[in-house]
Amino acid sequence: MGLFSKDIKSMDDLFVHTLKDIYYAENQITKALPQMMEKASNQQLKQGFEQHLRETEGHIRNLEQVFQMMNMEPKGVDCPAIDGIIEESKEVAGDVDDPKVLDAALIAAAQAVEHYEITRYGTLITWAQELGKNECADILKRNLAEEKATDQKLTELAESRINLAAAE
Amino acid sequence: MGLFSKDIKSMDDLFVHTLKDIYYAENQITKALPQMMEKASNQQLKQGFEQHLRETEGHIRNLEQVFQMMNMEPKGVDCPAIDGIIEESKEVAGDVDDPKVLDAALIAAAQAVEHYEITRYGTLITWAQELGKNECADILKRNLAEEKATDQKLTELAESRINLAAAE
Repeated sequence: MGLFSKDIKSMDDLFVHTLKDIYYAENQITKALPQMMEKASNQQLKQGFEQHLRETEGHIRNLEQVFQMMNMEPKGVDCPAIDGIIEESKEVAGDVDDPKVLDAALIAAAQAVEHYEITRYGTLITWAQELGKNECADILKRNLAEEKATDQKLTELAESRINLAAAE
Repeated sequence: MGLFSKDIKSMDDLFVHTLKDIYYAENQITKALPQMMEKASNQQLKQGFEQHLRETEGHIRNLEQVFQMMNMEPKGVDCPAIDGIIEESKEVAGDVDDPKVLDAALIAAAQAVEHYEITRYGTLITWAQELGKNECADILKRNLAEEKATDQKLTELAESRINLAAAE
């Protein structure tokens, strides 16, 4: 972030800035997911986090391809939003002992992460199309589709967790 | 947040904690929206922010009703996620001069806020139902429906902004 100059002069600049923002976010997520995996008790949730870690690594490669298409080196910018979302998830998880309550908290935290990514990819796709970068948009759409699928799976897990609890 | 003790012992505690989190978030959003309104150039966007400020005030009253139903005083907890999302939106907006680019950045920032609220309300509704707090769930559903409608309107604005630019 250029705090002392107005660095974002055009839609192109805004697109690149937001691309760097999600690149940083995806990288932070690859660091957070192994910790979430470790804390989860439910096997399906654990495996879900593991699978999403692999997907996230794929998203990073996809973003690197988008940077390459624009003849740019992949680079991140500080993203206080994802930092805050991850910090909050750690704080809440650190406040819970009971494994079932912790699983519920982890699902909620992961869904907050997914929604951040969903909104950023949605925005980036709209701007890529506006800027005529349709190939970039196509790659970003792949990442968006996987984030949405993960969010859906997490919703199903949240609901199945409840059904399991009710059956006990 | 109780950083030195495990304060969240049950799903009830987790529900209350997350209710306080979104209560804090909605209050922070009422402070951020007037600044966003001021920065926006597009009249529809300005009015949209103004309308959403009124809605947000209604969401706060709804949340206060949920607290009352549980015989609790409405109270917030620090929420690093919304703080980060708002901080990022201010940083990016502060980096843009061109009014049209600024409008695009403001729409993206507002959508990140909406998605945070959408995920939190979705989680709270699931948990309220799990805990048999169906009346609380009904009120939270009203907030969720308005957040989703706002996100949809912002998507339409983002697209109409592009169509306008194309027609120039």
